[in-house]
Amino acid sequence: MVTFQLSPEQEALRNLAHEFSETEIKPIAPKHDETEEPAWEVIRKAHELGLMNVHVPPEYGGQGLGNLEGCLIEEELAWGCLGISGSISANNLALEPILLAGTDEQKRKFLPWFCAEPRLAAFALTEATGGSDVAAMYTRARRVGDEYVITGTKTFITNGGVADLYVVFATLDRSLAHKGICAFIVPGDTPGVRAGKKERKMGDRASHVGEVIFEEAVVPAANRLGAEGQGFKLAMQTLDRTRPGIGAAAVGVARRAMEEALAYARERHAFGRPIAEFQMIQAMLADMAMNIDAARLLVWRAAWLQDQGQPGTAEGAMAKCFASDVAMRVTTDAVQILGGNGYMRDYPVEKLMRDAKITQIYEGTNQIQRLVIARQLLKSRS
Amino acid sequence: MVTFQLSPEQEALRNLAHEFSETEIKPIAPKHDETEEPAWEVIRKAHELGLMNVHVPPEYGGQGLGNLEGCLIEEELAWGCLGISGSISANNLALEPILLAGTDEQKRKFLPWFCAEPRLAAFALTEATGGSDVAAMYTRARRVGDEYVITGTKTFITNGGVADLYVVFATLDRSLAHKGICAFIVPGDTPGVRAGKKERKMGDRASHVGEVIFEEAVVPAANRLGAEGQGFKLAMQTLDRTRPGIGAAAVGVARRAMEEALAYARERHAFGRPIAEFQMIQAMLADMAMNIDAARLLVWRAAWLQDQGQPGTAEGAMAKCFASDVAMRVTTDAVQILGGNGYMRDYPVEKLMRDAKITQIYEGTNQIQRLVIARQLLKSRS
Amino acid sequence: MVTFQLSPEQEALRNLAHEFSETEIKPIAPKHDETEEPAWEVIRKAHELGLMNVHVPPEYGGQGLGNLEGCLIEEELAWGCLGISGSISANNLALEPILLAGTDEQKRKFLPWFCAEPRLAAFALTEATGGSDVAAMYTRARRVGDEYVITGTKTFITNGGVADLYVVFATLDRSLAHKGICAFIVPGDTPGVRAGKKERKMGDRASHVGEVIFEEAVVPAANRLGAEGQGFKLAMQTLDRTRPGIGAAAVGVARRAMEEALAYARERHAFGRPIAEFQMIQAMLADMAMNIDAARLLVWRAAWLQDQGQPGTAEGAMAKCFASDVAMRVTTDAVQILGGNGYMRDYPVEKLMRDAKITQIYEGTNQIQRLVIARQLLKSRS
Amino acid sequence: MVTFQLSPEQEALRNLAHEFSETEIKPIAPKHDETEEPAWEVIRKAHELGLMNVHVPPEYGGQGLGNLEGCLIEEELAWGCLGISGSISANNLALEPILLAGTDEQKRKFLPWFCAEPRLAAFALTEATGGSDVAAMYTRARRVGDEYVITGTKTFITNGGVADLYVVFATLDRSLAHKGICAFIVPGDTPGVRAGKKERKMGDRASHVGEVIFEEAVVPAANRLGAEGQGFKLAMQTLDRTRPGIGAAAVGVARRAMEEALAYARERHAFGRPIAEFQMIQAMLADMAMNIDAARLLVWRAAWLQDQGQPGTAEGAMAKCFASDVAMRVTTDAVQILGGNGYMRDYPVEKLMRDAKITQIYEGTNQIQRLVIARQLLKSRS
Repeated sequence: MVTFQLSPEQEALRNLAHEFSETEIKPIAPKHDETEEPAWEVIRKAHELGLMNVHVPPEYGGQGLGNLEGCLIEEELAWGCLGISGSISANNLALEPILLAGTDEQKRKFLPWFCAEPRLAAFALTEATGGSDVAAMYTRARRVGDEYVITGTKTFITNGGVADLYVVFATLDRSLAHKGICAFIVPGDTPGVRAGKKERKMGDRASHVGEVIFEEAVVPAANRLGAEGQGFKLAMQTLDRTRPGIGAAAVGVARRAMEEALAYARERHAFGRPIAEFQMIQAMLADMAMNIDAARLLVWRAAWLQDQGQPGTAEGAMAKCFASDVAMRVTTDAVQILGGNGYMRDYPVEKLMRDAKITQIYEGTNQIQRLVIARQLLKSRS
Repeated sequence: MVTFQLSPEQEALRNLAHEFSETEIKPIAPKHDETEEPAWEVIRKAHELGLMNVHVPPEYGGQGLGNLEGCLIEEELAWGCLGISGSISANNLALEPILLAGTDEQKRKFLPWFCAEPRLAAFALTEATGGSDVAAMYTRARRVGDEYVITGTKTFITNGGVADLYVVFATLDRSLAHKGICAFIVPGDTPGVRAGKKERKMGDRASHVGEVIFEEAVVPAANRLGAEGQGFKLAMQTLDRTRPGIGAAAVGVARRAMEEALAYARERHAFGRPIAEFQMIQAMLADMAMNIDAARLLVWRAAWLQDQGQPGTAEGAMAKCFASDVAMRVTTDAVQILGGNGYMRDYPVEKLMRDAKITQIYEGTNQIQRLVIARQLLKSRS
Repeated sequence: MVTFQLSPEQEALRNLAHEFSETEIKPIAPKHDETEEPAWEVIRKAHELGLMNVHVPPEYGGQGLGNLEGCLIEEELAWGCLGISGSISANNLALEPILLAGTDEQKRKFLPWFCAEPRLAAFALTEATGGSDVAAMYTRARRVGDEYVITGTKTFITNGGVADLYVVFATLDRSLAHKGICAFIVPGDTPGVRAGKKERKMGDRASHVGEVIFEEAVVPAANRLGAEGQGFKLAMQTLDRTRPGIGAAAVGVARRAMEEALAYARERHAFGRPIAEFQMIQAMLADMAMNIDAARLLVWRAAWLQDQGQPGTAEGAMAKCFASDVAMRVTTDAVQILGGNGYMRDYPVEKLMRDAKITQIYEGTNQIQRLVIARQLLKSRS
Repeated sequence: MVTFQLSPEQEALRNLAHEFSETEIKPIAPKHDETEEPAWEVIRKAHELGLMNVHVPPEYGGQGLGNLEGCLIEEELAWGCLGISGSISANNLALEPILLAGTDEQKRKFLPWFCAEPRLAAFALTEATGGSDVAAMYTRARRVGDEYVITGTKTFITNGGVADLYVVFATLDRSLAHKGICAFIVPGDTPGVRAGKKERKMGDRASHVGEVIFEEAVVPAANRLGAEGQGFKLAMQTLDRTRPGIGAAAVGVARRAMEEALAYARERHAFGRPIAEFQMIQAMLADMAMNIDAARLLVWRAAWLQDQGQPGTAEGAMAKCFASDVAMRVTTDAVQILGGNGYMRDYPVEKLMRDAKITQIYEGTNQIQRLVIARQLLKSRS
């Protein structure tokens, strides 16, 4: 029985996240955009309030919330600041492979640690030369007795360089392509693990994104997630699960931009009346609202599907792709509605426009998402 | 608790409608597109199967289905043929004012008649000079004793000229604008009611759309719906309720076009492989699927809201506007994917493209929908 | 020295073409759209006025006009009716291979015939299974002594079945792909040449498009254009040269739609004023004008480049692709501005929308045009 | 006789500007984007090379170049850096009212000063509360004997606060609206003239944009441009003349982004080949090239028209609006093609995207441009 009504618990969670975002994130967002430093204090408070690592099951110290609940939180936090939200939700991405493929022992060992204290984790997949072509990775893992020795450099890693734990993808043998890839849990203080260059970004600047360098970093074989050669599949499954969240964050950014544009259009007068009364402005606002609502529904649908135990591969890709395209358009139009003011850093919308762009790129560019969707179409509806 | 799962009854209804559309509508659609004649036999069978007048409550002989159920049916029927679907769903539009504002007596008198037999009704609002500016209507109603005498011409009326019953909007006094408008139930065989010009349309050709002329047509005062002067509001409420259905029909057209394009792209080879393997085609197919799903979700959300007793004015306008814009884009791209074949009447997609266009126009142009949305935004989120 | 001023001769030619289109084509366009019959009388008059075969040099009985002049004519004729214009300009396409690769003898033999009398020619390249993949053709030519024997079926041929002369592309050996293709001049009355199925099109209905079937049709070797194996290259060069003309025709369709929309918006009143005063309508009109002007400039630039002896491959593809996309958008919006009326065959804009679609498809789909442009980009600016 | 060939002098000028941009501007653009300081040294050199104040006639010490030549320069300089180009071309905007409405005496007094030395001028029209509604200005001018006393604050003024001369628009009487506005030449060192807040911008950061405050600033009546009440018209005429230049700058930004994307797509490999070989990338590159060429042609056409002595109001608005919309889309797509790298400040495209946005806003938002175009359409083609 189709219903679009959140449960009282979901509503409460959304309200909690919104209040937190309004009170704690929104006011400091411009400062962190300027300094490019993570908002440690906010991360600590988000952890305290239960807005972090929400998918970890109770048996490992977490709340065991669903993907939909995660999306509700991500929309609200990203409404306050995409970068700060990203630092927090990168943990979802990083811990997901453990949730998906970890043994009970691995879960017991690593998950409670995150639930107990506000630590950051990082998902270390991308490399400088690879990008969308994940299987072409150079980072290698060499089995030596009961251990693996990992060497290579990962790029564009959110929380990369400041995380307490990495889930690292490395190849046993590059010539095996997809089939050579393994995933490993690598504590951040492992000898040989160090931060490389920190990225200087256009937007999303309150998140720490950087290189992580592995130089003969040694981990016990017990830290391998899944069987040898299962890493690629695990990475893809992980991205399947986190795409709705990226979509939710994009919706948050877009909605914030619409709200700012709407408020401005009400206040700002030209030719003797509020500019909100001009049809051209109304058309822009209506398109914003319509597309944001559509994006949120795609996000919820994808998250819900996964909460039902379905892969939702195409649906997650749709949520991510559509929502991020909407975020880019809506923020660009919001700057337009604010005009000259919109272009200035004294107003919040230019930051939103800079932030929005990354949502079209990370965790799979929107070009890759379209290929994912097409592949599913060609497969499923034959 | 958000869920996107149809109930078993809804699934069954959808399947029923789909099978009917596949078996009865799709095969004859090209013929009726050619002849521009309504598919009387199909209408009869749809009635028999319970796919018509579905919102009429059981106490008046109907099934009392919700707006969401109505939308499920409309998507499937329009998937087969928009024009045939439109002849059938025009009854929903025409009977809605009776459901909304009719007295028990009026309902008892007029509704069972439609449930018992496959009759057509028509909603007679638009006039040649008015279009979106509904309140500027010229059709007038003069009170004479216990009766009203109606004179004027209504244009672009679906089932206009072949209906057994009209809900007619007329003004008591044009100088009162909105406040002078009344709604009347006018049986089709009332003396003075006659068919005017039948329209020759670009698409949607299996529906009969034409003028209805009222020349001193006399109806008892008991046929007035609501109080004097309440007609405009009733018309707007009616359109609020039927917009999701237009959206659903647009989704049906778009989905059919996508399915045809997908099937063709799988079969058609160029440069040694199916064109479905080319990225440009894949991007088009992915955009189709993503937008169709978004459109359907907006439709379901709006219909669901109304089934919860909420007006859903903005949400209905979003559903109608977004879905019809999607239908226009998707069908235009579907013709493109079929290339030269797509442009020919031997293939079904050119008809879908011609059909799609009307969904951007009727029951309020998409420009009007955007104004409706903007007005709600400015009102509700202040 | 850049200038956008037509010469007095060009202005005069444009005026001549416009007057002809206004007087002779526009009035009968709806009828031919309905009957799907070529407008023979108009073709005869266009020939008489010198609006046909304009690129044939004076030494072969023609006017030797440039590509730019041809584009001026095509815009004006297509402004009146794309289909009628297409019957006429198909001759340009068909005679172009003779102009490009014909020997003096071939030119003397075949060109004056067209200049002397209003005959139609056809360019017979496309096949049912090939489409954009031209080199995959099945029509074969077998050398027998001093003759070639041609067998195969060509599809979607403008004037195909009613032409007095065909330029036919056929392969000597399918396994040679591009390198096996030859071009032949085949008189329409050659035994073994006959009309196949006539296409039933969405729009562009005043042009005769159909199959041409070659069954052991014999032509003298002297009718081969260029060397054996040069046919593919010749076809591509021909399309390079005719793309600006397709762009011009698309501009004509778009401009006509804008003019109709503008006139309607001035006349039509809603809410107490002409709808041309509403910002949403103004934005649509402004976008139309801006894009049409841009399209025309791309067309002129490409045509001018070719008149300078440059291939203008990318520029021609830009002109065709951009102008036809503009035509599709502008005509779709023009129907929107006319609202319900726009959807009816009593008004001219729905036909323009149906017509516009083919310009995105024929003589290379816009997907192919983009590949052509990209290839040139990657080549030239390295 | 239409031609798209630049004259040898124009080619030479373009080459000069390009070499200058390549050598002097491009290398330092990232630094000035970071520091938000004008590139004084570049401005000095541009002046020396004759790339500044190019429209000043020889009799006042200038080169008397046309609008088209100005556009050639602006495209090339903006290709290097929009902000640096903007500091330089702001002089064109500021001196234009003097060229249009100045007496010979005024021209002799003020123009040679700029030609002799690298000074900056500023056009002081916009106010904080006015934006597009120019006539609503608050800055007032009071006539006192042979002088005017000017008081008010101008906002978003390029070179505002660092200019040696201002052309200031002020009202004699706010109740007169348009008809009360006058233009004045105000030397930068006039007592009472001072810099207000410097703006902190999203992009375009190498240009100094800020408030200019006039507190009882006194200028001789001889500094008034045109008659009393002619200021509004003069401002509009000035903007008419400078819009093609904004369009040219937008083309420069877009072209640079395309070149960067093209170079990257050639180098970057994924899935075993350069990403330039993927159709999705090719489609983006082709759309970039096609739209950039269309934009440049609109710019040249508008500039050429003005050089012919025509107002070119609609054509200038088209050039500005279309080119800046293209710049926004192309730069957003260029970041996409560079993926994660594109989002980083180590690569040039994110700056281009930030820069592009202002071209949709300044010297009249694109919404205003569309109204200008529509107004001309409704006027001229009736």
